[in-house]
Amino acid sequence: MMKPTFKILVQDNQSAARTGVINTAHGPIYTPAFAPVGSQGTVKALTHELVNQLGAQLVLVNAYHLFLRPGLEVIKKMKGVHNFISWPKAILSDSGGFQIYSLSPLTKVHEEGVSFASHLDGAKIFLTPQDVVEIQAILGSDIIMPLDYFTPYPSSYEQAKSATQKTSSWARESKEYFSSLNNNHQLLFGIGQGGTFSDLRQKSIEDLLELDFDGYALGGLGLGEPKSLFFEIVSQSTSSLPLEKPRYLMGVGYLEDIVEAVALGVDLFDCVLPTRNARNGTLFTSQGRLRLKRAQYATDERPIDENCQCYTCQHFSRAYLRHLFERSEITSAILNTIHNLYFYLDIFRKIRQAISSNSFLKFKEDFLKKSFKDKENEFA
Amino acid sequence: MMKPTFKILVQDNQSAARTGVINTAHGPIYTPAFAPVGSQGTVKALTHELVNQLGAQLVLVNAYHLFLRPGLEVIKKMKGVHNFISWPKAILSDSGGFQIYSLSPLTKVHEEGVSFASHLDGAKIFLTPQDVVEIQAILGSDIIMPLDYFTPYPSSYEQAKSATQKTSSWARESKEYFSSLNNNHQLLFGIGQGGTFSDLRQKSIEDLLELDFDGYALGGLGLGEPKSLFFEIVSQSTSSLPLEKPRYLMGVGYLEDIVEAVALGVDLFDCVLPTRNARNGTLFTSQGRLRLKRAQYATDERPIDENCQCYTCQHFSRAYLRHLFERSEITSAILNTIHNLYFYLDIFRKIRQAISSNSFLKFKEDFLKKSFKDKENEFA
Repeated sequence: MMKPTFKILVQDNQSAARTGVINTAHGPIYTPAFAPVGSQGTVKALTHELVNQLGAQLVLVNAYHLFLRPGLEVIKKMKGVHNFISWPKAILSDSGGFQIYSLSPLTKVHEEGVSFASHLDGAKIFLTPQDVVEIQAILGSDIIMPLDYFTPYPSSYEQAKSATQKTSSWARESKEYFSSLNNNHQLLFGIGQGGTFSDLRQKSIEDLLELDFDGYALGGLGLGEPKSLFFEIVSQSTSSLPLEKPRYLMGVGYLEDIVEAVALGVDLFDCVLPTRNARNGTLFTSQGRLRLKRAQYATDERPIDENCQCYTCQHFSRAYLRHLFERSEITSAILNTIHNLYFYLDIFRKIRQAISSNSFLKFKEDFLKKSFKDKENEFA
Repeated sequence: MMKPTFKILVQDNQSAARTGVINTAHGPIYTPAFAPVGSQGTVKALTHELVNQLGAQLVLVNAYHLFLRPGLEVIKKMKGVHNFISWPKAILSDSGGFQIYSLSPLTKVHEEGVSFASHLDGAKIFLTPQDVVEIQAILGSDIIMPLDYFTPYPSSYEQAKSATQKTSSWARESKEYFSSLNNNHQLLFGIGQGGTFSDLRQKSIEDLLELDFDGYALGGLGLGEPKSLFFEIVSQSTSSLPLEKPRYLMGVGYLEDIVEAVALGVDLFDCVLPTRNARNGTLFTSQGRLRLKRAQYATDERPIDENCQCYTCQHFSRAYLRHLFERSEITSAILNTIHNLYFYLDIFRKIRQAISSNSFLKFKEDFLKKSFKDKENEFA
């Protein structure tokens, strides 16, 4: 198979935003792109057909979850994750480092890797950076991520420095092992860490650049650090990265942050926000966020968002959606997820259109002014 | 609006089976027909679009559930249940009597109606037969059911007799009240009771016939009575009913029972079996039942049923479906429900075709021989 390529299509002339395309063995990913999260091999509360109809170009699966269940033997016998889950488009697999540090008990970071207990049955597991690449080689996902190490916010400089060094050292081992596999159909991205410390972030990026990854991700962000600091780090990092490689901002999901990050040159995003919020009855609209549990919607005949073309908005009232949510109907999760994911993917279509027509800064300004000036408030 | 009509299309010449059509204000229901259960106004784990694509001609909603939540005020403001739930096809509403007797605490049956506490918040409620018609008049469903009273199996003759008398007396009050409403777009069915006692069943039917309902339902069956007794009662009851009115066997859901009941002249069925079993990981196939939890399916690349044309069988392996089920993914409920409901509705299509082509007895024989000889066993 041909090595997947990344090509920039339009470079915005007023910002670092760009449109591009990652040509994978499972179809193109036009960027900026959003990867719906399907940790266990499905986007929660949707069928693949719906995910596809909503316009997703790729989904994210989680190597940690799939390694635990159904396990590598099953995935091997089923000839890789695309065949196992029957999703024909691109798949990005996260290493699951985040889950190892956040979900698993007894996690300990060693020089050679990380030891932890399965959050499912307590089984003790030790994974090296090579193991994590190997797992994703077996998955066969189109884009794979190395094992990294991040510290929570806030962390001391010394903690962050040590974690960043480990991330760099593991990145080297991951890249060496990956190169030895000659898995030409897969892309391996490097992950920049460094906490909120500018010099550590810079060093982390430089370490990765020496290894020449297929793309570069920014990790350890969106953990509660001030927004100004967050954007400074993204800006500093992307401006140190080569233009010709895709950039991926991991786990950042607020649309107002995404739009700013696109302006700073980020190409790829993933987040559980639209799907998780949907299941919790919080819906994104062009006017702000709507919480279905509010009694005011009990007889509200309007759709969630009068400007939205999704199946849910074209057919169902807030009153019905509130009723389904209050009754904990599974259908509530389906209809809400359809809306939220359509809303996200539609914003990404508009972002790509705006960049293509050299009107992205205007789009961004309008978007932030209209939608999210009262981000923490709900509309009436 | 025109009064809905029932028309027999083909009368089988070897059995009491027939095809027909109930023309409702919300489209035709070709019979024999299966009503997927959507008690709260949605078929669990599906969108209406999917229910429609699977070939459902009507759905069943539950007046008791909708009366409790969202409540009649909401339904009134939303202009009836069709508009509230945005389902354009026919709706049959069950009175909810079964739920009052089985779900609610403190239920007491009086001469004038039934008192009970809401299973949701304990609120004390008293409903007369007139109230139950009134609730369903507000719902605006196409077919409505009166309040009835059944006794569990086994019950003494005296208990069953008393319950049957009450059912007859409430049927009269229901019919009188319904007639006074002049709700021409709705059909009111009578419900026959009588436990497992032949003379009580006969008397119950005769009482209903005097009142000239738009259709006749058989209630209080499938409660654990022997199969032979069950079929005797169905046979006796349908042969006492006028040919020109639709017959509805309430809550009976095993396909082998349905096929036999069709041969005895039943037109309409509803049951939670296909949808509930789907959520529990039990799938119906042309070879028998398949339980996804079994370890043998972990690497089974075959679809649930190789003869099935549903979305789930056309796209996904048993291995993947087992994984989703084991992980309690909502998508598991969706994909399993698509399969089971498709399987049911497809059998009904085949039943109608077989009757139309005067080959129903042959169909029934083949169906029972092939599929369910080992009803309680799973296939390998």
